[in-house]
Amino acid sequence: MIPIGERINGMFLDMKKAIADKDKKPVQELALRQKKAGAAYLDCNVGTASDDQEAAMRWLVETIQEATDTPIAIDSQKLNVIKAGLEAVDNLKGCLVNSCSGDEEKLDVYLPVCVEKNASLIVLTMTKEGVPQSVEERVEIAATIIGKAAEYGMESARLFIDPIILPINVPGAQAQPGFIMDALSQIRIMTDPPVHITCGLSNISQGTKERSIINRTFLAMAAAVGMDSAILDVLDTDLMDAWITAEMIINKQIYSDFFLKAARMNM
Amino acid sequence: MIPIGERINGMFLDMKKAIADKDKKPVQELALRQKKAGAAYLDCNVGTASDDQEAAMRWLVETIQEATDTPIAIDSQKLNVIKAGLEAVDNLKGCLVNSCSGDEEKLDVYLPVCVEKNASLIVLTMTKEGVPQSVEERVEIAATIIGKAAEYGMESARLFIDPIILPINVPGAQAQPGFIMDALSQIRIMTDPPVHITCGLSNISQGTKERSIINRTFLAMAAAVGMDSAILDVLDTDLMDAWITAEMIINKQIYSDFFLKAARMNM
Repeated sequence: MIPIGERINGMFLDMKKAIADKDKKPVQELALRQKKAGAAYLDCNVGTASDDQEAAMRWLVETIQEATDTPIAIDSQKLNVIKAGLEAVDNLKGCLVNSCSGDEEKLDVYLPVCVEKNASLIVLTMTKEGVPQSVEERVEIAATIIGKAAEYGMESARLFIDPIILPINVPGAQAQPGFIMDALSQIRIMTDPPVHITCGLSNISQGTKERSIINRTFLAMAAAVGMDSAILDVLDTDLMDAWITAEMIINKQIYSDFFLKAARMNM
Repeated sequence: MIPIGERINGMFLDMKKAIADKDKKPVQELALRQKKAGAAYLDCNVGTASDDQEAAMRWLVETIQEATDTPIAIDSQKLNVIKAGLEAVDNLKGCLVNSCSGDEEKLDVYLPVCVEKNASLIVLTMTKEGVPQSVEERVEIAATIIGKAAEYGMESARLFIDPIILPINVPGAQAQPGFIMDALSQIRIMTDPPVHITCGLSNISQGTKERSIINRTFLAMAAAVGMDSAILDVLDTDLMDAWITAEMIINKQIYSDFFLKAARMNM
């Protein structure tokens, strides 16, 4: 399992304020708390905290790196902000770029940048035409992504495909998780070793009144069909326990009477 | 979702005593509590509470029927005890026989009995050679079961296939849930409409120290690949909430802000 801690994001008010004020302490504390809770990567998104997003991203990456060597997921929709983050990252540690769309012209830009920097890449199964509604379209976009990654020499272990989870309370969206899980079953057998599959987990419960149980139940279900990563609230103990248990059930974590504790010690 | 309440079983000490003493009250209270908690069927197993298992089964079925019209799952490994239960059951209510193995000679006996009584049947994907270890063997036994059921005119909506969940803490058993989920994905597409898929859920966590989280996590995962029934502790609220949430996520329960409450009201 590859948990990506979601909390260092200017979308959250505490981080927005810290980034705007260049106040290192709350950022570094949150970095360490997420690391301790099992984050394999720390997502790092400046949001709207600053007018100069490049400078804010550089500051944020450097601030996190002062506190911990947990790899960073540089999260932005803007290539210039991603590049600013990549320049600040200590290359030896490896990092993750979050994210690129499945459009060929975007992949032609992002993939060589990531390969050069030795970074992994999250690619969304969406194009400029929008988020696909069917299983087939998602699988088709995934095939394009995998083909392009091979073309640029990115090994499948560095590629994360994100099938895009929409809020379940949006009219018409309730059929989507089923489609996504069917798509995952197909995507995970496209390459050997399989690509990683991740998602912005909290999205599914956005605006609902039962966020925690929806998040952890979907996570267990998606793990059953091959999802091995998620951008999520690693500080939610019930959520992480559900994920560890799901991975134990599919034999990716060894069972012992204290498997929850053992898994946390190995994180 | 078709929850089968597991608690009226002579294996549990309170029920063993009630059956031995012919004490109706604890049985009827447990029947009503399980009904209220959402049981679609009440499993009914005399265990070792009496030397005369046929008489005990008749008494148990009649006792439950005095209290509620929730259908009964007559649970025994002995055909004579099953038959005694079936005689006591009010036919109009429909019931479930739990269970038969996947041996052809067993199916040739159990299927006509169930068809005649209008009862549904749980069949385990095991034969006299034991519990299969591979996906292929489980699928092969399921195909035999489905073929035999068609031969005797049992509609697929009345057939429950149980892939047999073994305790996860037994050496070598940790690979089994993954195999079972792969088998389920294949079994659910063998007929249209699909057969029901059920399991003795509590088995998976037998002897472990984290029973509740293992049960509910496996249930959500199995629901993702087509399991629509389980013999389980319906009184475990967290477990039932996880199941309702899983069914909502795969669009079998309609989302509303109060989907947990709404689902319970419809049970």
